[in-house]
Amino acid sequence: MSLVVIGGNAAGLSAAARARRIDPHLKITVLERGSTISYSSCGIPYYVEGRVHSLDELVMHTPEYFRRERNIEVRTGTDVAAIRHPQRELSLAGGERIPYERLVIATGARAGNAGIRGADQPHVFTLQSFDDAERMKRFLQDRKPKTAAVIGAGYIGLEAADVLRAHGIRVTLFQEDDRILGVRDAGLRQALLARFQRFGVEFRPNEAVRTIENLSVNGVEAGVAVVAAGFQPNVELAQDAGVEIGQTGAIRVSERQETNLHGVFAAGDCAEAIHQITGRPAYIPLGTTANKTGRVAGANAAGRRERFAGVMGTSIVRVCGLGAGMTGLSPSQAAAEGFDAVSAAVEARERPSYFWGTQTRVELVAERRSGRLLGGSVIGERGVAGRTNVIAAALQGRLRADEMEQMDLAYAPPYASVWDPLLIAVQQLRKLID
Amino acid sequence: MSLVVIGGNAAGLSAAARARRIDPHLKITVLERGSTISYSSCGIPYYVEGRVHSLDELVMHTPEYFRRERNIEVRTGTDVAAIRHPQRELSLAGGERIPYERLVIATGARAGNAGIRGADQPHVFTLQSFDDAERMKRFLQDRKPKTAAVIGAGYIGLEAADVLRAHGIRVTLFQEDDRILGVRDAGLRQALLARFQRFGVEFRPNEAVRTIENLSVNGVEAGVAVVAAGFQPNVELAQDAGVEIGQTGAIRVSERQETNLHGVFAAGDCAEAIHQITGRPAYIPLGTTANKTGRVAGANAAGRRERFAGVMGTSIVRVCGLGAGMTGLSPSQAAAEGFDAVSAAVEARERPSYFWGTQTRVELVAERRSGRLLGGSVIGERGVAGRTNVIAAALQGRLRADEMEQMDLAYAPPYASVWDPLLIAVQQLRKLID
Repeated sequence: MSLVVIGGNAAGLSAAARARRIDPHLKITVLERGSTISYSSCGIPYYVEGRVHSLDELVMHTPEYFRRERNIEVRTGTDVAAIRHPQRELSLAGGERIPYERLVIATGARAGNAGIRGADQPHVFTLQSFDDAERMKRFLQDRKPKTAAVIGAGYIGLEAADVLRAHGIRVTLFQEDDRILGVRDAGLRQALLARFQRFGVEFRPNEAVRTIENLSVNGVEAGVAVVAAGFQPNVELAQDAGVEIGQTGAIRVSERQETNLHGVFAAGDCAEAIHQITGRPAYIPLGTTANKTGRVAGANAAGRRERFAGVMGTSIVRVCGLGAGMTGLSPSQAAAEGFDAVSAAVEARERPSYFWGTQTRVELVAERRSGRLLGGSVIGERGVAGRTNVIAAALQGRLRADEMEQMDLAYAPPYASVWDPLLIAVQQLRKLID
Repeated sequence: MSLVVIGGNAAGLSAAARARRIDPHLKITVLERGSTISYSSCGIPYYVEGRVHSLDELVMHTPEYFRRERNIEVRTGTDVAAIRHPQRELSLAGGERIPYERLVIATGARAGNAGIRGADQPHVFTLQSFDDAERMKRFLQDRKPKTAAVIGAGYIGLEAADVLRAHGIRVTLFQEDDRILGVRDAGLRQALLARFQRFGVEFRPNEAVRTIENLSVNGVEAGVAVVAAGFQPNVELAQDAGVEIGQTGAIRVSERQETNLHGVFAAGDCAEAIHQITGRPAYIPLGTTANKTGRVAGANAAGRRERFAGVMGTSIVRVCGLGAGMTGLSPSQAAAEGFDAVSAAVEARERPSYFWGTQTRVELVAERRSGRLLGGSVIGERGVAGRTNVIAAALQGRLRADEMEQMDLAYAPPYASVWDPLLIAVQQLRKLID
């Protein structure tokens, strides 16, 4: 039996490694177009920032590691030109043919450029690949720009703005609509903007960018520019082979991560996932999901029957030292999805002042009638990931607000307040539930 | 309608405040034996340590606040001598009688001394009251002891040891059996002991202390001693009035926090609570539980019908900079409770090394056949409370290991690893489940 995986990053390598663990005899080949495998693309901004000294630090494993330790053949610089499923074979760009019995498509995503003119100039970057990061870092060192434009206020845009202002550069952040981190919620926006303002980052909502000029964007001086206009799943190869694409534009998969072609699986940033709160397919490309869906795809490709439950859309980003975590639906997302939702936001100290407690903002969203939790966000300087994850776990356990109110959370003065901001938020939320 | 609350701390004041919110017309009186109300006893070690400069910092509200802002009458220095339930009245030590229609007993707990001789000497403390803390702080300043004995390796004992070693004192920690933090699990113990050793705290398990000598304990020099031999619920007043005491020695209550006497509720450290994993009554006195059970007692005393779901036994303690969090059952507790349980422990970095990631130990316990999560512990330097709380939330949602494996946890390099130690632990755990 042979398994071929297209793509040598989070999803592809998770699939290959899991399949190997399940079946020691499977012939497993991973084909990667680029020169590097197994790298943390989420770490790229921190290389440009200067905290990561070498891009090698972001590489977890080499092809040699997989060959030696896992008996997995990894071929880099290997471009798949076509999937011929009726023949169960791939043809490479050079003409070589590679047969498969099971296939995992993990072709990832690429930075979208939203049709912006001038995005190919040498002072424009995307923070999405090692080459781009290397080029940007050199540009910042050599040219020492004083002003920057960041286009897109998703998490990559926010990280880019943060990295640039850490270099002492005056940053303007453009967003074509009024969303920030993909949501339209005033409270969340206000908290982030207050922080940006304090650090000299100017936010310009409802301002689309059509063209990046030589040294300016929409009339604002910009010696360097980052286009962070979202991701586009790499689906062309799959689509040409007859793999079905979902409404989100990414590959449609079953809960077993199988595509419409029998024996062909897809995972990671090229595939959709079911959003557990809405029950509908969503496209939220993240490294954690890539790892999990890769594992499930690999297990099923190796003959197991496993399912992926779907995503909650949990994410976290750091903006000028402030953490912003989200999971499930925001108030505006819940409304847009047709839920009759209520929400409550509180600010409270996350631990006593004698342990340098800081104010943390927690917002929770629930269904008005059932009280079922739909989502939440946490903004603060400490304990943000933990609290966001508690909400994610509560979502997964399908807890109602009245159940959440009795959560037995850990308390000791070095770590928490006796009334955790989460519990204070739930108390407020409960008052709004029928 | 009148409500009387005996006890002016976490449970009692939570009950009074909640009852007031529900019924603006209720006559509410709180009777407190001591001179101070509404204080954080968990903060006391940090006063002795020196981080909290004045005990006033640990007081949240004054009787005047409750009178003025909440229309709640709080009488300090008021000792209740007897509850005469047939007459629906209390008699105070001075003879005064106070009628009630609803009563909340929130008499708390006192430090046990385990029958140790010599515990009344001036160099022996319990870290349990403001008076004791004041006395201990003065003793450390005036006498500058170089050696200390701490008797009991529960969380108060561990905090006491930590406070004393922070004063540069050589500490010996005695425990009558082999438990630490109430559990008998080698992995947890090893991690804590390694830290204690590094900071010069000597642990002597299986060594009961019968007598505290003038300057030594069991032959070990001790210029100061702390007795941290657990808590004893203050149930005598209730018991004399015919309130039923449970097998744990604390007041037995219904899920509405009502005692066997109609209209008489109990909450906080004087009462039992149902352990949600075992389904049996447990006595785990903690401030968080006191607040929650107080709220439920207050709501029901004011005419609502609310229930307290019970506790998970979630706790956290800091030992020489290391956090140790626990929730649900430990492996040894699960076995003792008759579960056919499996457990897995892992050590993994909680974030990338370029964000100073540190090793975190996560242990998870599940039922072998169903895979249902039974408990877990987290030990590390960062993110311990958050991860412990995620396990607590998973317990509350009754998640199985295979469900937990797909938890959508927040990831970004400043906050987490792409494979969180929690998820790595779940993956190991799953391999052990039938």
